[in-house]
Amino acid sequence: MSSSESSHARVLDRDTVLCVSLAARPSNIGTRFHNYLYNALGLNYVYKAFAPTDIAAAVAGIRGLPIRGAAVSMPYKEAVLELVDVTEPSAAAIDSVNTIVNEAGVLHAYNTDFQAVADLLADTDFDRSWSVAVAGSGGMAKAVVAALREAGFSEVTVVARNTQTGTDLAGRYGFAYRSALADDDRPDLLVNATPMGMSGDAAEQLPFPTAVIEAARAGFDVVALPPDTPLVRALRAAGKPVISGDAVIAGQAAAQFALYTGITPSPELVAEASEYSRRS
Amino acid sequence: MSSSESSHARVLDRDTVLCVSLAARPSNIGTRFHNYLYNALGLNYVYKAFAPTDIAAAVAGIRGLPIRGAAVSMPYKEAVLELVDVTEPSAAAIDSVNTIVNEAGVLHAYNTDFQAVADLLADTDFDRSWSVAVAGSGGMAKAVVAALREAGFSEVTVVARNTQTGTDLAGRYGFAYRSALADDDRPDLLVNATPMGMSGDAAEQLPFPTAVIEAARAGFDVVALPPDTPLVRALRAAGKPVISGDAVIAGQAAAQFALYTGITPSPELVAEASEYSRRS
Repeated sequence: MSSSESSHARVLDRDTVLCVSLAARPSNIGTRFHNYLYNALGLNYVYKAFAPTDIAAAVAGIRGLPIRGAAVSMPYKEAVLELVDVTEPSAAAIDSVNTIVNEAGVLHAYNTDFQAVADLLADTDFDRSWSVAVAGSGGMAKAVVAALREAGFSEVTVVARNTQTGTDLAGRYGFAYRSALADDDRPDLLVNATPMGMSGDAAEQLPFPTAVIEAARAGFDVVALPPDTPLVRALRAAGKPVISGDAVIAGQAAAQFALYTGITPSPELVAEASEYSRRS
Repeated sequence: MSSSESSHARVLDRDTVLCVSLAARPSNIGTRFHNYLYNALGLNYVYKAFAPTDIAAAVAGIRGLPIRGAAVSMPYKEAVLELVDVTEPSAAAIDSVNTIVNEAGVLHAYNTDFQAVADLLADTDFDRSWSVAVAGSGGMAKAVVAALREAGFSEVTVVARNTQTGTDLAGRYGFAYRSALADDDRPDLLVNATPMGMSGDAAEQLPFPTAVIEAARAGFDVVALPPDTPLVRALRAAGKPVISGDAVIAGQAAAQFALYTGITPSPELVAEASEYSRRS
């Protein structure tokens, strides 16, 4: 074998199955996560990120080429609802799609963010009678609030500066709405579903007042880059249980992987792929 | 680096450019040819064959995802004409498209088969006053006849069992039509643009009578699998100059490669990629 041939270890052929992501500003995380697992499991799949200019045309391409599956990110999570054929319960629960699976030309829509958050909450021993404050009212907040409801939490407050989306989200489940928490509020469980703590301008921001964080029993932060946000660090330093965003992103990506391939990778392999995917 | 990571030599990232092929029954040749050159030249491109179920949706996907370029094969070479934005001269010459290039959302249609045949004829010293017989009246025959006209041959006979397509093609250029040649016909240059000689049922077939082949001065066979068809072998055995189908397929693929990437690979590299692509 010549040296140029040996670099063809992962040569594509006509049978290679393509999965993609559709986002305005794609990250490399999904691409690295899925391709890592395809390689590790010896699957003839390949994963490629796209930044489509026309989401309807992009979804037509999923159906027409065909492409096996697509991760859907901002700003297309709602728009694709009317472009698919079957809205599965996880997407219907929050009117938001993060995964399309092409079953012989029939496009099924799922939301594995919702599923991952629900699975992570189901695995905790957090008391369902605890009061919960959720910061945020965007797409991920919708997934979190729906998953809290599904997990059995009933005393939930949506905390969001945007009154319209905040009251809409809270009202959907009969939960409370607040524009912000005060220092003397005492929710047991704090959930961050905003970008606060994400690397960049918001890196040092806390989604709740310091006094509220100090008094809380546990936390859940959806921010994955980095997973050790100021909120996560503060709670962990105080010895409190915290679920961080790397678990959410790995859980939702593993759920996508299983939908695309029919194979559920082991938790060890998911952790390995997740660690690899977040390396720069 | 772990062993699973080292296999990521060609890991895709969000910037990887995708080119595809669209065919009812894709071969592996284009996939291997293009990916070989991407690797050899260190380009962040990847090539994947598709067998679309809906050509309009597939072309929408080229535009919408976006995909940089698409090779178009049977049975879509005519149908895509109305799905693109700009029909370049090589495609307009024969109303047939084998290549789509996506320039910032504007789809340009080319025919690199026509271009490759024209280039190969231009490189010969075949006398333009020679009489030429072309077997076939399908898509490749259209490319060959148009290229013969462009190269300056004027005494051309289209030989095809299908009277309708045969007379249409001949009539377009004021050339002659015959349903078959007789043993005593004496064309100087024999061109095969039918599947005769291709591996499978037609592997042992000759497109012209043996006596005609024995008397000819030179030949041109578009069949690439295998390139040493019975016609090519018969002409070579008699010491006559022959252009074989591997040169056509390599030339058209190299022209596609240049359109997709802006890079013209060296003849040596094209030969290497072509040889690699035809290995099973």
